[in-house]
Amino acid sequence: MSSWKGRFRERLHPEALRFSSSLDVDKRLFGEDIEGSIAHVSMLAKQKILSSFEAKKIRNALRSVGNEIKKGKLKLDGFGTNGRFVAEDIHMAIENRLTQKVGAIGGKLHTARSRNDQVALDVRLYLRKEITGIVSSIRKLQKTFLSKADRQGYIVMPGYTHLQQAQPVLLAHHFLAYVEMLQRDAERFSDCLRRVQKSPLGAGALAGTPFPIDRNYTAKALGFEGIVENSIDAVADRDVHIEFLSASAITMMHLSRFAEELVLWSSSEWHFAEIGDAFTTGSSIMPQKKNPDMAELIRGKTGRVYGNLVALLTIMKGLPLAYNRDMQEDKEPLFDSSATLAGCLQICALMLQSVKFNKQRFTNDRQSDLLLATELADYLVRKGMPFRKAHAVVGEIVNVCVRKKVSFKELSLKEYQRHSELFTRDIWKILDLRASLQNKKSAGSTSPKEVAAALRRWKKSLRSKS
Amino acid sequence: MSSWKGRFRERLHPEALRFSSSLDVDKRLFGEDIEGSIAHVSMLAKQKILSSFEAKKIRNALRSVGNEIKKGKLKLDGFGTNGRFVAEDIHMAIENRLTQKVGAIGGKLHTARSRNDQVALDVRLYLRKEITGIVSSIRKLQKTFLSKADRQGYIVMPGYTHLQQAQPVLLAHHFLAYVEMLQRDAERFSDCLRRVQKSPLGAGALAGTPFPIDRNYTAKALGFEGIVENSIDAVADRDVHIEFLSASAITMMHLSRFAEELVLWSSSEWHFAEIGDAFTTGSSIMPQKKNPDMAELIRGKTGRVYGNLVALLTIMKGLPLAYNRDMQEDKEPLFDSSATLAGCLQICALMLQSVKFNKQRFTNDRQSDLLLATELADYLVRKGMPFRKAHAVVGEIVNVCVRKKVSFKELSLKEYQRHSELFTRDIWKILDLRASLQNKKSAGSTSPKEVAAALRRWKKSLRSKS
Amino acid sequence: MSSWKGRFRERLHPEALRFSSSLDVDKRLFGEDIEGSIAHVSMLAKQKILSSFEAKKIRNALRSVGNEIKKGKLKLDGFGTNGRFVAEDIHMAIENRLTQKVGAIGGKLHTARSRNDQVALDVRLYLRKEITGIVSSIRKLQKTFLSKADRQGYIVMPGYTHLQQAQPVLLAHHFLAYVEMLQRDAERFSDCLRRVQKSPLGAGALAGTPFPIDRNYTAKALGFEGIVENSIDAVADRDVHIEFLSASAITMMHLSRFAEELVLWSSSEWHFAEIGDAFTTGSSIMPQKKNPDMAELIRGKTGRVYGNLVALLTIMKGLPLAYNRDMQEDKEPLFDSSATLAGCLQICALMLQSVKFNKQRFTNDRQSDLLLATELADYLVRKGMPFRKAHAVVGEIVNVCVRKKVSFKELSLKEYQRHSELFTRDIWKILDLRASLQNKKSAGSTSPKEVAAALRRWKKSLRSKS
Amino acid sequence: MSSWKGRFRERLHPEALRFSSSLDVDKRLFGEDIEGSIAHVSMLAKQKILSSFEAKKIRNALRSVGNEIKKGKLKLDGFGTNGRFVAEDIHMAIENRLTQKVGAIGGKLHTARSRNDQVALDVRLYLRKEITGIVSSIRKLQKTFLSKADRQGYIVMPGYTHLQQAQPVLLAHHFLAYVEMLQRDAERFSDCLRRVQKSPLGAGALAGTPFPIDRNYTAKALGFEGIVENSIDAVADRDVHIEFLSASAITMMHLSRFAEELVLWSSSEWHFAEIGDAFTTGSSIMPQKKNPDMAELIRGKTGRVYGNLVALLTIMKGLPLAYNRDMQEDKEPLFDSSATLAGCLQICALMLQSVKFNKQRFTNDRQSDLLLATELADYLVRKGMPFRKAHAVVGEIVNVCVRKKVSFKELSLKEYQRHSELFTRDIWKILDLRASLQNKKSAGSTSPKEVAAALRRWKKSLRSKS
Repeated sequence: MSSWKGRFRERLHPEALRFSSSLDVDKRLFGEDIEGSIAHVSMLAKQKILSSFEAKKIRNALRSVGNEIKKGKLKLDGFGTNGRFVAEDIHMAIENRLTQKVGAIGGKLHTARSRNDQVALDVRLYLRKEITGIVSSIRKLQKTFLSKADRQGYIVMPGYTHLQQAQPVLLAHHFLAYVEMLQRDAERFSDCLRRVQKSPLGAGALAGTPFPIDRNYTAKALGFEGIVENSIDAVADRDVHIEFLSASAITMMHLSRFAEELVLWSSSEWHFAEIGDAFTTGSSIMPQKKNPDMAELIRGKTGRVYGNLVALLTIMKGLPLAYNRDMQEDKEPLFDSSATLAGCLQICALMLQSVKFNKQRFTNDRQSDLLLATELADYLVRKGMPFRKAHAVVGEIVNVCVRKKVSFKELSLKEYQRHSELFTRDIWKILDLRASLQNKKSAGSTSPKEVAAALRRWKKSLRSKS
Repeated sequence: MSSWKGRFRERLHPEALRFSSSLDVDKRLFGEDIEGSIAHVSMLAKQKILSSFEAKKIRNALRSVGNEIKKGKLKLDGFGTNGRFVAEDIHMAIENRLTQKVGAIGGKLHTARSRNDQVALDVRLYLRKEITGIVSSIRKLQKTFLSKADRQGYIVMPGYTHLQQAQPVLLAHHFLAYVEMLQRDAERFSDCLRRVQKSPLGAGALAGTPFPIDRNYTAKALGFEGIVENSIDAVADRDVHIEFLSASAITMMHLSRFAEELVLWSSSEWHFAEIGDAFTTGSSIMPQKKNPDMAELIRGKTGRVYGNLVALLTIMKGLPLAYNRDMQEDKEPLFDSSATLAGCLQICALMLQSVKFNKQRFTNDRQSDLLLATELADYLVRKGMPFRKAHAVVGEIVNVCVRKKVSFKELSLKEYQRHSELFTRDIWKILDLRASLQNKKSAGSTSPKEVAAALRRWKKSLRSKS
Repeated sequence: MSSWKGRFRERLHPEALRFSSSLDVDKRLFGEDIEGSIAHVSMLAKQKILSSFEAKKIRNALRSVGNEIKKGKLKLDGFGTNGRFVAEDIHMAIENRLTQKVGAIGGKLHTARSRNDQVALDVRLYLRKEITGIVSSIRKLQKTFLSKADRQGYIVMPGYTHLQQAQPVLLAHHFLAYVEMLQRDAERFSDCLRRVQKSPLGAGALAGTPFPIDRNYTAKALGFEGIVENSIDAVADRDVHIEFLSASAITMMHLSRFAEELVLWSSSEWHFAEIGDAFTTGSSIMPQKKNPDMAELIRGKTGRVYGNLVALLTIMKGLPLAYNRDMQEDKEPLFDSSATLAGCLQICALMLQSVKFNKQRFTNDRQSDLLLATELADYLVRKGMPFRKAHAVVGEIVNVCVRKKVSFKELSLKEYQRHSELFTRDIWKILDLRASLQNKKSAGSTSPKEVAAALRRWKKSLRSKS
Repeated sequence: MSSWKGRFRERLHPEALRFSSSLDVDKRLFGEDIEGSIAHVSMLAKQKILSSFEAKKIRNALRSVGNEIKKGKLKLDGFGTNGRFVAEDIHMAIENRLTQKVGAIGGKLHTARSRNDQVALDVRLYLRKEITGIVSSIRKLQKTFLSKADRQGYIVMPGYTHLQQAQPVLLAHHFLAYVEMLQRDAERFSDCLRRVQKSPLGAGALAGTPFPIDRNYTAKALGFEGIVENSIDAVADRDVHIEFLSASAITMMHLSRFAEELVLWSSSEWHFAEIGDAFTTGSSIMPQKKNPDMAELIRGKTGRVYGNLVALLTIMKGLPLAYNRDMQEDKEPLFDSSATLAGCLQICALMLQSVKFNKQRFTNDRQSDLLLATELADYLVRKGMPFRKAHAVVGEIVNVCVRKKVSFKELSLKEYQRHSELFTRDIWKILDLRASLQNKKSAGSTSPKEVAAALRRWKKSLRSKS
């Protein structure tokens, strides 16, 4: 039974039905739909719009429909017992089944409600659940970075700019950068959740309802922090949905960067990290391959989430108020992005746990000695040379090293003094990667002291969060 | 059985397997995969790399696997008989089943082939089929516009700019604009097809193969027009895929414009078109509603296809050669866009057939009389006034009409002459919507003669195309 | 003078210089750059890294350079006095000029600072200023909606779903929906600002600095609420930039919807709103045209802001830490989006003020009488009929009206009773648009009482905000 | 002077004028605008719509206006001599100046033309020029790859999949992959050009014109291959514009991949390529840095072009026919993408010329010896083992090598035979990177013979193209 046949002489064309049915997508909202309907019915009873007998009957039947779906006993293919397609979406599928169970009073469930506020409600219930799950997965990934930092964070690696070795940093410091990024990601989701946490139920089709409903009652019963005030706004907008997709896209951007780094570090050339067998794959043709597929997939799936964001932005652009059927297309981008992000966060944490780092990779590397160039320049500055000049002097020394294929340590003091008389015997002390780290003085720097403090701070802060 | 276990001591983590499996998506390529494998095996036999006995056995078994899948007899869930997940993608699922059937020689199917060229091949076979179908659907929609123009194309409607009534046009002329757009859409798909029609098979993992294969043989057997020459390019690029998505996005853009027009025309305010009951829906709450849902969905689904284009562009950005696992993510955007576009083209044609136009809507409308303002200006120009001045004069006359709430026809000649002495009695002849149409002289204009010629041309041109 | 010549034997190729120079774009950050440098120098002096004499000299010179730029006395084309291109960006242009003024000690400005933290700082200062301006423009537009509602909000118009007339609403109620949307937009910008309000200065190139700087001092001096803790994160991430673009895109989405409505309402067909002459344009060829160009441009410029969001998301995807030159491309999307959004908010408010609404448009419209169909159904429900049945009954009555071309009011009671015996004489009372409004009981509905309360609430709430 | 004041009582608001003016953007179309106007005037004279005297006068004045603009003598700021803003776009700026020169007959230029067909024409003339330039730049980059291949193409490098060393390839083979990609890019632009090469002039505002113009005459005079037939289509669509942006985005995608590779190859870790000093930059703080900025910028600018594509797709979505002011926003994405792409193609070619490759990098690398694993497997297959089994056997041998830290060559024959008795003395012959190359047999493989043939083919094919 469709919900609107009255004024129509002709049935919906079968192809149109197939084209417009959303059941296959929105059926995963069945739990939210039933939860919302139960709250609605309770309110209708409280307000004497339904009798408490009717309400109880409907509620029980709704719960039983929910169980049927959970157990796979109710086919959600949209076809009725007569073999005709009858339910264009999950809302009608549930209501049809309800009516089979309780008869005509099932029709009263829709009193003082429209599919417009109903679907707006269901998606907000869904988003709330998903955001909670995602924030918790973000916490887990942050904790994985921290525990990994605890175990191997003392490793010295080159910090890169332009993918050129720039200055030595602790692996823990590098990891802490991701912990910070993920923290802002979690904040963005929490900010979004604040806006999600308003109930649209009771907005009706768009104008409210003549029934003396209590919107705050259902809002509270469903765990919302308030109602979406304006009834048109409640059914017409999808901005928090886009905000969710945007927060997802930014988080994926962050994950894609770490994924890229894992891919680089796992290459023969970098030879810095080895992802565990359980998170790599081989090649069907090249027996030596050990491929960082999970990292590549995380990086690739970023495209999917970006695309979903673009999809919903495009859908909503220039739509007049209030509800338009275009907005049915809001669900797949949400469902797909949420599942993708949750999957990537989980795999990223699992994979990270499995990574082994090559401790000696950069400490034994002649090339990496050039990481100390900034130290040399700062040395000259401390002895009174303006920074720009010190930079030029060290640049010339680098040239000598590159030409002669030697490291800073292999140059003689005399050679240094040829470039500036400020060089004295104490330069040997600074020509050491770990000395460079310890030398750092600024807050938030890669100095072991700062890094240790940051790790302590983060562990304490995350301990309280599940 | 995974295709690469040799050097691994640990199995893929179950979550990693789930995360990376593409079987659920790429299983719809089973037909292409088997078609490609059969051609490959025939070539291997021709080149004496397999014996003709082996080849025949494998070919027969492949056909039988194909039939099993078609009939739903082979579960494509990736789980083996031992309940363990064994097939990460359709290619392994088929090969596993093959090996069950023919034993160890099944392993020879993969001789001189890699999953990289195999999957590149499958997708090209898929794209070829889809493009052919889409072009044919475009033809159908063009023909629907033409047949609709035949029946109701004589209706005069306002051509709009800025959604303001601008100049009268024939409905047929308006439809012909879409026929032209769709023609360019079809051309873009055909251009793309030319680039799709090259076989990547034989590129191996990326470097070619030491087996004396005949790439042109398989290319020809599979109906390609040639091979993708360079073996790295063959497995590394996805540009024709993006081109397909771009052609789809542009076509959706065109459809979204017509959909928007149908939505507008169906509004109470426009009252110009009524979409058939079979392509409209009602409201669950407002019994009077007759909603242009199909048009709205077409407009909304544009977002989905735009998003898919962005997804693949994002995925491919900055990927080093050759194959990267990110590229596994190319399939869903393709499958989804193709299905969406095909569905929209079909529904658009069916819906258009059902539309009834309100013939008298604009011919009896005082407001629409202002459509003749350009005629009035041109009238003055023909009598020698520079265009810019004529424009200003008529602008003032429009002001008078708006202020007095009268139409051009209701003004007296004297009033006209108050604005310019060039006005004489012959202005009454031009103050008629159809006269305005007939007045048009330029090629491709909305004059009935030009429109009739265009219709004839198009009907002839499309007749030859299925 | 370039900032890094030391180790290079060859100059940058002139085409490479032109290609990579950002001066033309980032020169608008000159104010932020000087502000940041002054704070940095003061801190260096406080920490005894520079002498107070040096610091004072540099600060004064920086202020003087700032004045030169403000007054247009310093050419910012990147060319030095010798006609050679010397400044690739605004930072070097300022430092070069500084050095001309104060000689070699100018080189000390860069002590304990890198271009990486410097540019990150400048953009945050810029974003803070822009967000403040945008939030204030959002407030202005909200207030314009409210003052417009005060004056013409009592007008009854159809609320639309699917662009079909659905239920009567007050124009003020419709406006309030936008006030709510804009409120969430402002919130999103404020949430973003919280994350912007951290100083990256002192992060150095990526690892911190060996100089004993005081990061919190500069943060406080520049009005930040804290520092970006991790030095790598400080120079490597651009997530708050993307968040800004996303908040901008969502706001543009909202504006595009209102713009679309203005375009529709201004059409001859809708004839509901007339935008003031000062915000419409005519046609170069059609003298009668009065085009809603500003609304169209707002709608169109949505594309530009969406594009900017995609641009920066794409840029950042998959970039390894820390700074990469790709990130230079972050500025134009920010500058362009901010200017576009600010312009659109301003024009939207000005244009809205100029709109005149046609009060009688829908109250005298036979078609709009169907808006009362939901009232009829609710009437039957109140008399005990289940909603779904009431809906079907009214649907049939609508059919009668459409077929007979009469309105609900023009049907006789007998005819009503033919469809249900529940109809009695009291139906005439509900067949009135304003009665329908007054009938609404739910919180946030379009009932005049609810709307008046919402207006009061909003006016009070916005009064306190500049 | 605005072009449409007649019916307006109030001037455009100064902020609206500023907001809507496109002069600052479209002024770079002045050449196209004048070219089009001259052709239009000549046609008007030929058709006796203007006298030949008038036409000559206007043509001469137009040429003179063009020269004024070229020489910077005509300020294009939109302000008239009275200090009032008078020209909202380049078309009015030129016409205003024309009228200053020739008086009232200047107004006749706009006879039988509208700004709608005029601007459509100008952009097509622009696109034609840009496409021609871009295709030529693509040719240059292809030739640079070829000449680089001539000089260093014999270098053996690892072909990568998943960024893991996969199989040895010739550098020339790798370059040829890009030559192929660029070839398809050029084809896409040429296909687009075919659709650009139709004249919209004469479509008028949207309906054609009552003047007896000759559209084919102007089309031919301007070098078009025909006319855009339907007058509505001619002014309403922007699909070829989007197609141009899409072709640009795909080409940028290709360039971003090569840019990524240059960034990787230039890293200390890869140490495979050194970009010339003239195309790298240093760091303001780290004297040792030599950064691949140009490659990074090319990669980053990909985002900008993707964004432009999204912008125009968004703009055009759901716009009713014909012209809407939103479409004014089509120009910046086109101008910006074209300039960006042209710049990137040029810099990419120049930079590539400057790259020096480290010939011995991979031939002396123990790790790279594993590249021969596929050879080993194929060896076993040739001796009769099914491929899947051979793969597993070699996988185990790889494990031994990794565990013992030895290369394939360092294992004894005995050890090989422990894994399979098929191994005999002849394996030493295949354990050589160059032997592996020579071993390849398939068309388009990396075998030196195939690569040499491909180079010859390409050089011949490109010789004929400027």
